[in-house]
Parts: sequence; structure tokens; C-alpha cells
Amino acid sequence: MQITIAGHHTTKVGELWEKGLADLFQEAIGGSVKNAGIDSRQIDQVFVASKAPGEFNNQLHLNALVSQFFNHFPPSMRVEGACASGGLALLAAEQAILSGYCQTALVVGAEKMTDTTASNATRILAMAANHDAENGSTFPGLYALLAQVHTEKFKTSREMLSAVAVKNHTHALENPLAQFHREFTLDQVSQSPLVADPLRLLDCSPISDGASAVILTGRKMKNKPKILGFGHAQDALDLASRKDLTTLRATVQAAQKSYQMADVRPDQIQLAEVHDCFTIAEILAIEDLGFFDKGMGGRATLNHETKLNGKVVINLSGGLKAFGHPIGATGIKQVVYLAQQIEDERYKLGLAHNVGGSGATAVVHVVG
Amino acid sequence: MQITIAGHHTTKVGELWEKGLADLFQEAIGGSVKNAGIDSRQIDQVFVASKAPGEFNNQLHLNALVSQFFNHFPPSMRVEGACASGGLALLAAEQAILSGYCQTALVVGAEKMTDTTASNATRILAMAANHDAENGSTFPGLYALLAQVHTEKFKTSREMLSAVAVKNHTHALENPLAQFHREFTLDQVSQSPLVADPLRLLDCSPISDGASAVILTGRKMKNKPKILGFGHAQDALDLASRKDLTTLRATVQAAQKSYQMADVRPDQIQLAEVHDCFTIAEILAIEDLGFFDKGMGGRATLNHETKLNGKVVINLSGGLKAFGHPIGATGIKQVVYLAQQIEDERYKLGLAHNVGGSGATAVVHVVG
Repeated sequence: MQITIAGHHTTKVGELWEKGLADLFQEAIGGSVKNAGIDSRQIDQVFVASKAPGEFNNQLHLNALVSQFFNHFPPSMRVEGACASGGLALLAAEQAILSGYCQTALVVGAEKMTDTTASNATRILAMAANHDAENGSTFPGLYALLAQVHTEKFKTSREMLSAVAVKNHTHALENPLAQFHREFTLDQVSQSPLVADPLRLLDCSPISDGASAVILTGRKMKNKPKILGFGHAQDALDLASRKDLTTLRATVQAAQKSYQMADVRPDQIQLAEVHDCFTIAEILAIEDLGFFDKGMGGRATLNHETKLNGKVVINLSGGLKAFGHPIGATGIKQVVYLAQQIEDERYKLGLAHNVGGSGATAVVHVVG
Repeated sequence: MQITIAGHHTTKVGELWEKGLADLFQEAIGGSVKNAGIDSRQIDQVFVASKAPGEFNNQLHLNALVSQFFNHFPPSMRVEGACASGGLALLAAEQAILSGYCQTALVVGAEKMTDTTASNATRILAMAANHDAENGSTFPGLYALLAQVHTEKFKTSREMLSAVAVKNHTHALENPLAQFHREFTLDQVSQSPLVADPLRLLDCSPISDGASAVILTGRKMKNKPKILGFGHAQDALDLASRKDLTTLRATVQAAQKSYQMADVRPDQIQLAEVHDCFTIAEILAIEDLGFFDKGMGGRATLNHETKLNGKVVINLSGGLKAFGHPIGATGIKQVVYLAQQIEDERYKLGLAHNVGGSGATAVVHVVG
């Protein structure tokens, strides 16, 4: 059975002080139903993605919160897997459709992160680690370790890390929904305040509010993008338990599964939205997804091979870095962005890559 | 395709001071794999249920935490729907198996609730409501309102409420895993301290630690209980938005779906584990599930019709009330209990009823 992306919508991403969590959900859902042009009663199951709505907004049981936006109260569940919650919710919906017990599913993700202080947000985010967090590390620290290993082994330079941020901020200039519309130079990134050596402020994705929704269906619909493949894999939660810190094994395995299901090779992918929560994460991703040889991701970025009109366009939306990272929405807004590009006939085949924690969960989708 | 319960295990439920959240998961998983007698590498997807591990234990990303108990790191996701998280995780696993993308799934739920104060636990639990909670109500208050309406409309008496607690505590005497092994008289329940009029301390389920796991498979296995039907429905999150407070509409609809799928009538069910978070909740459940006419649940309970050897045996395990209510585990431990009773040839057909919040989410399973 083919799964069609019948409709989709992403809200503006940013510090949305005037909007609450429920407002964000409602806006994304309304937009996706309108975009699909379907009667909302056709939605027979709902999958909600949000990482930490209890911690950020004192609100759990989001499945019920979202279901009651509809007169027919469709059955609904929330899916969580840290920053990969959106990708996992898509996966649950796809399995529901393929089971035959659901024909049309709404997948909606949101996070309202600015209702707390930045330091408390950092504490909440660290709940996605385990012993690493108990020992006092937060996510910038964990990705900094990954960056140090990559730098040592492959001579990945400060400039290469900065090139990721520069590119994604440039791409975001063309995305009206992006949190940031500001260009940076390599030097500006390289000289921004140090957060966790070698990562600096402009190596990090921001704290964001936002929501994104897609409507997936098993019904036949012409001229709409399809989910061609999905893959999901896990690795150890803590860095100390991993065999190799130069690769995210879960990304490699999830990608292999999705390529196999979609029957495509990495070199056929023209456009990829990858999980660049930190600049080093994008470098790891474009290697682990098979776009570049291991160790060559930083060089490729610095050589503009991942920019608009490059060999493979990475994070044309601006990515988590500049489009923003409203956690529960992130994995969904990647697929929404690809669907829009495919509908606009700019690209034929896209890949979405969503990671949880420091790489313990990875979900990859191929859309075409 | 038939879904077989290949193996299952529930831990002791109670105030388990010497165990952490990860210990509880590990114990339930190990027990279920041993009970199934399968090679754990056959588990190709994992569904984790937990309501509020971030709030209770500063730990999110439980899918990764659980996956790494296995050498092969099976793909894993966490499902949340307040106190119905366990039922929803079962449902997600069933759809995954029916999709053909998963053959054997582990569904494991746990909650470690005693790592915080009782007052903070009450606050965390109230995150499953929305405006009701914002306006200061907690769950005893919401179920007290439901009890008041039922009492006024159907003359449900104090004694009838107490009869639920007395029965479930009596049943729990035979369940070695139960949190409480203590008999109460009707008078003791009726004179226990008032919590929210008319609900008293002994009308309420406890704060519990515990875990439960089932292994579901699409493979053919003889002499093992099967999932015959499942149903899931939603209602408004807040009581003010409901049309009728004498019934939980989501329970009625979820039950209808599960009866239809299993092709059974309510009067064929011999044994039911229902969501008795408060005594009034059991009375509502046995009416809404179709075992007794609306308004007659309290009378039936007082007349011993729901006791061991009664017309339909309700909460033989002791229920949430006396077996305990480790939230994420609850919907799973109901199914585990039914599976054990069926394997022991005491019953042929059982029903599990799991509710989220004050009734906004309901999941019903028929097992046989």
C-alpha cells in the first residue's frame, strides 16, 4: 500500500509569546486540513508528538487535548522519543495505515518551549540522556565531545563547523516560517561565545515554539507526494556505551532501512532535511546517511557541496539551526518542507532525518 | 491475522523504595521474555508506556533506555495517554503487528511514582486534565463530581461505593503481587478520611511503583491467549465539555469497537479488569461496558454480582484500588492478569478497560 501526504502545514517558528501549546496545535491542524482539502471527519486516527509538554507547560494527555479539536473525537495517542518524537509519530501513523485499521491519520507535533527559563529548558532537554545527564552533562556538552572526536580523527576544522551554520542561516533567508532571518560569516560563527568546547553559540540550534502537521492516507490521491520509505533504529543512550563516536549508528541503520524500502540509493537524494541540532550533528548526518564518505562531511560543507545547487542540498529550510527546533514538531516539519518542495516541482526525491538525544534514536523518511 | 500473547510478566506493585525506574522496566522485560520462552532477538519492535517519567524521575527518552536492555537494540517508541498509556501502547503494538512491519513486539509499561512527594504526585497527575486542573481541581475532585451526579440521578449510596473497595481489597488477598493485602469492612471504607466529597481515602487508588510487560506476536503459537479485539475512543478532556456526566462516552465507544472486533457480547465476558482509579469509576465502567444497566452498577456491586463467582467477576486482581496503579503499567498489567487466568484455565474470555484522565481516553481489549 502506498501512503500519500494528503495535506500539511507548519506554523511560524520562533519565540511565540502570544501563543500557547494548544494554539500551536490548533493552527497546524487547521492548516493541514485546509491544505488537504478533505472533510476532517475522514481523519480516523491522530498521532501527537511532543517531547516534554508536562515539563514545559504542565500539560500531559495531549492526545485528548488534540482529539477534542474535532467534532468526531478521533482516537489519538501521543508518541515520545526525545527530539525524534515527530519522526516516531509519523512511523506509528504509517504502521496504523498499513495495518488497515486506519485509513487517514493526522500526525501533529508541537513544542512550546519559551514558557520556562533557558536554564530550566536545558535541564528538561537533558532528560533525554541518562547517566550522561546524571553526571552533569547537558546536550551541548555531549555533542561537543562528538565534535572533539571528529576533529581529532578527521581534522574537521573550526571553519568547517562554522560553514554548516553559515549555510543554514543563508538557506533560512528564503523560508518565511524560519525563526532567524540573518546572515552570518564564518568568522562571526567561529567567534561567537563558547558554549562547550569546540561548540559556540552559533553552532547550536535555538529554543523554539512551533507546530507542524501532516495528514497521511492510504487512499489513492494523484499529484501528491508519497512516503516511499521509513526506517527507525536505536543505539545506546549514553556516549560511554557506544563503540564508535565518529558515527551515529542509529542513523546509519535507519537510513539503510529507508533506502531499502524506498528502493533508492543515497546518491539519488537531491534534498535532505537532517537533524542539525548542533553543527557537528549535520556533519555526522551527511556522512552517516551516505551522502559523503566518513570524515569528509566538514570538507564537503566548506566546499559548498551541500548548499542550494550543490551536490545534495542539505537543510534548505534552514534546518534546526535557523528554521528552529520546536522539538515535537521538528521531525514532522522536515517532512512538510520536503512535501512542499516536491509539490512545487523543485525536487523529486527528499530525505528527512530526525534524531533523539545524542543519537540513541534515529528515524529516516524518504519522500517522493 | 491473530495476535498471540506469547509471554508476560508483572512485577510486585507497591512502594518499591529499593528500585528505580530502569530496574522496574528490566524486571518486567526479563520476566516476559522468560515466560514466552523465546529468543529475545525475535523482538523486532518495542512500545514503552509511562505517563510522567520526566516529572517523576527526570527521565525522558525511555524508548532508548528500554531498547538498550537488548543486544540488538530493537526500534522503540514511548506512548503516552495519561493513565491509559498502557492500553495505548498495546494498541500501537497491535497495529504494528497487523501492518506486517513487525512480527513480535514487546509492550512494557512502568511508573516509579514514589520518587517525589504525595502533593507533587497529585500535581503531576493533574497534568492529565486541562482547564479543570488550571482551575485548581485534582483527580479526586473530578471523580467526586462524577460520583455526586451518579448519586443524585441513580441514588447510588455511600455503601455501594464502599462495596467496590471492600470487594477489590478482598480479591487482592489472593494476588501476591498486589500492593495491599488487607481486608476492609463497608463501615471502614465509609468512615475513612474524606478526600473530596463523597470520595474518601479508601475510595481512591494508591500511588504505586511497578512495571508490566507483554510480548505480542503475529506468529502462530498454540495454547496461548489471543488478543480478540481492541477498541479506543476519546471524549472531551474537561468535565464541563461533556454532555452527560453519568457515563464515560469513550468507554462505551471503545467497548463497542472491541466487542465488534472480537465478535462477542458483553454478557459473554466472565472476567473484567476495569479502571477503578476511584470506586465510582468502577461503577461507571461496569455500566458503560454493558455488564449492567445504567444506574445499576452500585446495586450490583453491593449484591455481590461482581465478586468472585458472581455474574461477572470485576477486578479479581484487586484492580487499581488494591493491586495498585503504577500508571504506565496499569493497562498492561490488566491484560497480563487476564492472560494468566486464561492460561490457568480459570476463565475463557476476559476484558481489560483502561482509562485516561477523567474519561477523555479509553482503551478496551478482549482477550481469550
